[in-house]
Amino acid sequence: MIHLKALGKIMGALMFLIGVLMLPAVFISWIYGEDSSPIVISAAISLSIGLIFYFSFAKYDQLIRKREGYLVVTLSWLIMTIFGMLPFFLSDHVHTISDAVFETVSGLTTTGASILTDIEAMPKGLLFWRSMTQWIGGLGIIVLTVAIFPLLGIGGSELFVAESPGPTSDKVHPRISETAKRLWYIYVGLTVAATMLYWAGGMAFYDAINHSLTTMATGGFSTKNASMAFYDSAFIQYVAIIFMFLAGTNFTLIYFGLVGKFSRIVKSDEFKAYAGAVVLLTLIVFTGILMHSDYSGELAFRKAAFQVVSIITTTGFVTDDYTQYGMGITFICFMMLFLGGSAGSTAGSIKFVRHMVFLKNSWLEFKRIVHPRAIVPLIINGEMVSGRIINNIMNFLLIYLSTFVIGSLTISVLGYDLETSLGAVATCLGNVGPAIGKVGPVDNFAFFSPAAKNVLSFLMLLGRLELFTILILFTPFFWRAN
Amino acid sequence: MIHLKALGKIMGALMFLIGVLMLPAVFISWIYGEDSSPIVISAAISLSIGLIFYFSFAKYDQLIRKREGYLVVTLSWLIMTIFGMLPFFLSDHVHTISDAVFETVSGLTTTGASILTDIEAMPKGLLFWRSMTQWIGGLGIIVLTVAIFPLLGIGGSELFVAESPGPTSDKVHPRISETAKRLWYIYVGLTVAATMLYWAGGMAFYDAINHSLTTMATGGFSTKNASMAFYDSAFIQYVAIIFMFLAGTNFTLIYFGLVGKFSRIVKSDEFKAYAGAVVLLTLIVFTGILMHSDYSGELAFRKAAFQVVSIITTTGFVTDDYTQYGMGITFICFMMLFLGGSAGSTAGSIKFVRHMVFLKNSWLEFKRIVHPRAIVPLIINGEMVSGRIINNIMNFLLIYLSTFVIGSLTISVLGYDLETSLGAVATCLGNVGPAIGKVGPVDNFAFFSPAAKNVLSFLMLLGRLELFTILILFTPFFWRAN
Ligand SMILES: [K+]
Ligand SMILES: [K+]
Repeated sequence: MIHLKALGKIMGALMFLIGVLMLPAVFISWIYGEDSSPIVISAAISLSIGLIFYFSFAKYDQLIRKREGYLVVTLSWLIMTIFGMLPFFLSDHVHTISDAVFETVSGLTTTGASILTDIEAMPKGLLFWRSMTQWIGGLGIIVLTVAIFPLLGIGGSELFVAESPGPTSDKVHPRISETAKRLWYIYVGLTVAATMLYWAGGMAFYDAINHSLTTMATGGFSTKNASMAFYDSAFIQYVAIIFMFLAGTNFTLIYFGLVGKFSRIVKSDEFKAYAGAVVLLTLIVFTGILMHSDYSGELAFRKAAFQVVSIITTTGFVTDDYTQYGMGITFICFMMLFLGGSAGSTAGSIKFVRHMVFLKNSWLEFKRIVHPRAIVPLIINGEMVSGRIINNIMNFLLIYLSTFVIGSLTISVLGYDLETSLGAVATCLGNVGPAIGKVGPVDNFAFFSPAAKNVLSFLMLLGRLELFTILILFTPFFWRAN
Repeated sequence: MIHLKALGKIMGALMFLIGVLMLPAVFISWIYGEDSSPIVISAAISLSIGLIFYFSFAKYDQLIRKREGYLVVTLSWLIMTIFGMLPFFLSDHVHTISDAVFETVSGLTTTGASILTDIEAMPKGLLFWRSMTQWIGGLGIIVLTVAIFPLLGIGGSELFVAESPGPTSDKVHPRISETAKRLWYIYVGLTVAATMLYWAGGMAFYDAINHSLTTMATGGFSTKNASMAFYDSAFIQYVAIIFMFLAGTNFTLIYFGLVGKFSRIVKSDEFKAYAGAVVLLTLIVFTGILMHSDYSGELAFRKAAFQVVSIITTTGFVTDDYTQYGMGITFICFMMLFLGGSAGSTAGSIKFVRHMVFLKNSWLEFKRIVHPRAIVPLIINGEMVSGRIINNIMNFLLIYLSTFVIGSLTISVLGYDLETSLGAVATCLGNVGPAIGKVGPVDNFAFFSPAAKNVLSFLMLLGRLELFTILILFTPFFWRAN
């Protein structure tokens, strides 16, 4: 039996927290003299329903077990969506529930795909809430990755935590572990640093805060229609490149860097792969830009580095339309939607450690074929990876690709062309933002039908929660387990 | 050390055999009063070089070990290509080496993609040799699947052989096993039966032979520009549907059916999945045709069944342009390129048993997550599949998809649009024939550049030899092994 009532208290606390997190947006509405009522009402609803839930279920204070853990995670994201969409829905700027859900899910999952056609026409308070949804999503994914997923056995995430997450227990207590707290400090600190640097580079303070919130979340929502292309400043764009790269780095490694333990960074196979891929792909795209456009020198290099770091880290800011660099570069950018940054960062998609397990395992498979009796271990970050985790990660990869295919089929059946379907699904599932076809870097998602938007919203959630968390709820094993 | 000289004798025998197999085409040239010299010269070259090789290396009669086995398989297909392309190259109808290689590889791998723009303008002798290359390829793949791949540990092929292939040994002796012989009788018998039925249905005897050769090989080369659409006969088209289906069935099961052991067929999980998928996908495409075209009733059903069976079995005959049935059906047809028929048939692509291992393993992974301490075995055809084979098959699937992606990237970099690149690579790697984009069911491959044709030829070989056989030659494990 699932102890549903034990979840009520947690969900109440979460609703209350959402209400609290809306207050800065209310404050910004006031500063700019806007009609603050949509956000005020939303905050009031969240706070009051949150309190009612919290105290109604306070008596059911049972321990949350592993099985309820899956439900807690999925329900948390659903509840954040339901309450987080209220400011959009109550405003005059988003007209349907599908649109409000899409924009909110795109925020909370740090995807950054948008149904807004004129962002600069939106009230500043609402846009700030929009940026906040990404930053909150980023906070959430840090807890999940270091404190929850390893306990739930999701997608080989035991591998992701560079530091031991402590003794594994079958009980998931809803406290935030020490590790998660430490990483939050880094997240907050980097957000403040990015704000200062964006501001120093000439961004308005309001825009600097918004962009730093969505940079650190690898979210990619911008307050400008042209995204980062609006800022014709090398300084601002390099700041964005550096902070996107950091946001896509395993936060535990950043912590080790800050406390001077550089040996841990050097030993990380995933960091080397991540950094190496960024360098290599930047050079490839740089070459493509030199060949297929009028840009040259530093500008061409910056455009290459920006686009590559933005896509690999699944941030999704753009400073140029990469589909203009020829078919080869377009294809490479499309493929990068499947890379993802490092595990233990706010980046989405597949992530480097999984690709490494696949590549190493495939390579070693040839050794196993030649030497059928030999034991051929797979080593990542200096430690042997168990067959169980390898199998789990191979499954993850294949389920990810199957979801991509089934999702693309669904969107194409709803009446969209192949390129647009593949692009929209890849970018939503990978929580990136821009893609190819009719959802290229300079397009938006407004034209999709409500049905297509709902499918894409579901895919964003599925990707963000590492597939298994949600999919397991659809299996009998979850409901029948003792 | 690799005993290269020990391979010389086998390769000589193979060249001689190719020469012998060209003689029927010479005979047909004479019957139709054509210039037989291109085929006569090709046969003479093959026979004489074959004899020279055979006797030069006859003294090195060492046992072929497992490691030489990989080389034997890859070299065999290369040598069949080199000698098999001579009749095309020496004729006036194929002008470049890339074209001759492409057409021959497409034949030997039973792909059926063609660079010929006017098939009916070709001499009948040469067209017959073209059909023969597919039939020879089909013969070859039967030996590989039942007698060679399981010994080489390729792609989990131990699973494919419904009947035990006898004691596994580290030595690959180049004799053809009893099992393979029995299956060849079935292959020859069904080819004769198909010829008679096509003839009875109104095909010219010459065309009946050609089409039955390429039907049983799941090859799909036709002697008509319009492929099977040329024959406006329900009888002929249903004969084709039935024999394509049989050619995509595990030949061992057909043997059991012929000797009355139906229980073996009923017990086969793969056969049930294969037959079930054919029925289900026929109904889906049937619905799509009813919605998106003027066809109705039996004609619509026949068109659906024909296209579905043709693609799933990787035959590639067409009776209609499935890209006209709407985006959803086009996408489904594209996805079917990745299905493949049953293992142990002449069908290419991934094959049902591998998809089943993936699907079952993924499903059970959820059980493993909920019950981390439980042993959760995977059962196929009533037997437990070892973790080693599961890992091998998961690797195969991911390497297959990676090859598809890298291949598509290569073709798109060579200057072709996304849809064409994805379609051409999927259909060549899967040994199917028709695809989407500019290589749809009514198109051909003539327009590709020589470089693109060479890449596609390599992909056809890679797919036909189950990836590992060729790829292992590029690893140090193969060359360094003791
Ligand atoms: K993003
Ligand atoms: K074929």
